[in-house]
Amino acid sequence: MGMVPALDYAAVFIFALSGALVASRAQLDIVGFVFIGSLTAVGGGTLRDLLLGRDMVFWVAEPGYVVLASVAAVGVFFTAHLLESRYRALRWFDACALAVAVPAGVGVALSLGAHPVTVVIMGVATGCFGGLMRDVVCNEVPLVLKQGELYVTAAFAGAAAGTFADQVEVALPVALLLCSAVTFALRAGSLLFGWRLPSYKARPPRQ
Amino acid sequence: MGMVPALDYAAVFIFALSGALVASRAQLDIVGFVFIGSLTAVGGGTLRDLLLGRDMVFWVAEPGYVVLASVAAVGVFFTAHLLESRYRALRWFDACALAVAVPAGVGVALSLGAHPVTVVIMGVATGCFGGLMRDVVCNEVPLVLKQGELYVTAAFAGAAAGTFADQVEVALPVALLLCSAVTFALRAGSLLFGWRLPSYKARPPRQ
Amino acid sequence: MGMVPALDYAAVFIFALSGALVASRAQLDIVGFVFIGSLTAVGGGTLRDLLLGRDMVFWVAEPGYVVLASVAAVGVFFTAHLLESRYRALRWFDACALAVAVPAGVGVALSLGAHPVTVVIMGVATGCFGGLMRDVVCNEVPLVLKQGELYVTAAFAGAAAGTFADQVEVALPVALLLCSAVTFALRAGSLLFGWRLPSYKARPPRQ
Repeated sequence: MGMVPALDYAAVFIFALSGALVASRAQLDIVGFVFIGSLTAVGGGTLRDLLLGRDMVFWVAEPGYVVLASVAAVGVFFTAHLLESRYRALRWFDACALAVAVPAGVGVALSLGAHPVTVVIMGVATGCFGGLMRDVVCNEVPLVLKQGELYVTAAFAGAAAGTFADQVEVALPVALLLCSAVTFALRAGSLLFGWRLPSYKARPPRQ
Repeated sequence: MGMVPALDYAAVFIFALSGALVASRAQLDIVGFVFIGSLTAVGGGTLRDLLLGRDMVFWVAEPGYVVLASVAAVGVFFTAHLLESRYRALRWFDACALAVAVPAGVGVALSLGAHPVTVVIMGVATGCFGGLMRDVVCNEVPLVLKQGELYVTAAFAGAAAGTFADQVEVALPVALLLCSAVTFALRAGSLLFGWRLPSYKARPPRQ
Repeated sequence: MGMVPALDYAAVFIFALSGALVASRAQLDIVGFVFIGSLTAVGGGTLRDLLLGRDMVFWVAEPGYVVLASVAAVGVFFTAHLLESRYRALRWFDACALAVAVPAGVGVALSLGAHPVTVVIMGVATGCFGGLMRDVVCNEVPLVLKQGELYVTAAFAGAAAGTFADQVEVALPVALLLCSAVTFALRAGSLLFGWRLPSYKARPPRQ
């Protein structure tokens, strides 16, 4: 298996865990866990493949992805009560999934010879849209948009680092590892140490 | 007209009724009824066609679908006040639409020779995503995710039954009828008799 | 540059301004401005291109669109505090963007020889879905669905006028200008003078 499918498998598995945890917060049944877990798992990569006009969406070409996501969601259904804090687990699973989904997006776009701007966008979109769909459908405040945290910024910086590395002819596996490391470091730093960018502050809106 | 287009027409018509009822709850104007009715009517099938990479999305190839959805929505605009309970009508229209949209998804995926796992997913997606878009856009609690009801489960069981029947070489129309019957029976049983799967229960989240 | 790409550039730029203003209301950081600005800017045109099965989504083929959206969003990050009322600016930017995005959708669909019903839908979808995604993701009440305003109606009337003009063999630039003028006139009239269609009124729902 090549490196990019391996990243896709890892992202699918970990995002499915995060989706199932959100399903547990919404007190769904086991099929609801599988539904939200799968939506989260394949949402970002599906958008990437549709935007890039790939011949087949990755999980339509290889149904093993959805089977894996379903297994992960069922596992969470039976074990989530063992977790100390489901919300903390959700955020860390989501951070790990982000750190493999962004390089998965960058890797696919590079393999199709996309423009560097497009490569960066595909990294961000693959990383962010699965979790965004999960949160919109389940009516949670999107993690992507939480004030005072690095999320899109982590995805963007990682995707930019990986794309830049590829431009200066670093070997692909190294570029994707760099992409993953930068994404995870920024997201984890934000969760652990409160790293953030200044947010927009204004006079209170008058409407 | 083949059986699958007939199912698509039926799903479009009934989902448009359900979408227009949600528009009536949001007190939109007649164009808003047409907008939400059409979105609900073609949302699931559009997703199916994009995911399967069909040459043309079904309603782009044949604009009659959207005309039908618009007529249905306009009809609801002028008659919804005659209903005893718009919410009950909404749930039953939605149940009927689900029971024709799931076999429409299964039928298209089978006709393209898709993998059985993919066939099941296309049934669920075609059935569930039109209503999900309707509810997300109109800010209602998605019917798909209502606690203590069978919805995705009904779609999944129907799609799985139809796919299995096709695998054991039952004739296509019979397989699709079985798919529809299983979906409707489970959804209607849930609405009438409270059939449900156990939902996830946990210690209250500590955040 | 042809007229349709020019309309796409204008729609991307103005929708990005409106997206960034919503980001300012959500107090996001600068990368959040770029994310929401870009999503709003390209959302409608992306849907149009996927539905029509174009060879490439417009901003994947030409990354300048996203660069422009990002620049617009960054500009808003640094200047939005100068606005008297960000909400009023948001609504007017949105109205202007609608009035260029609808003809952009009509123009692309006409150039692909689509059926007149499809042309009208592509105008409405290109105009409405970028703002709809912006509002759903940021959890604002969608402008599209605000009671007692013309929004989808303005887009629909403009798209229908442009399509009709094309059918009676008016030159394309004139048809697109007419489309834009009708859309803007109805939307602006709604904002300034409260023009509206009667909305659905019913007995209070009994649930």
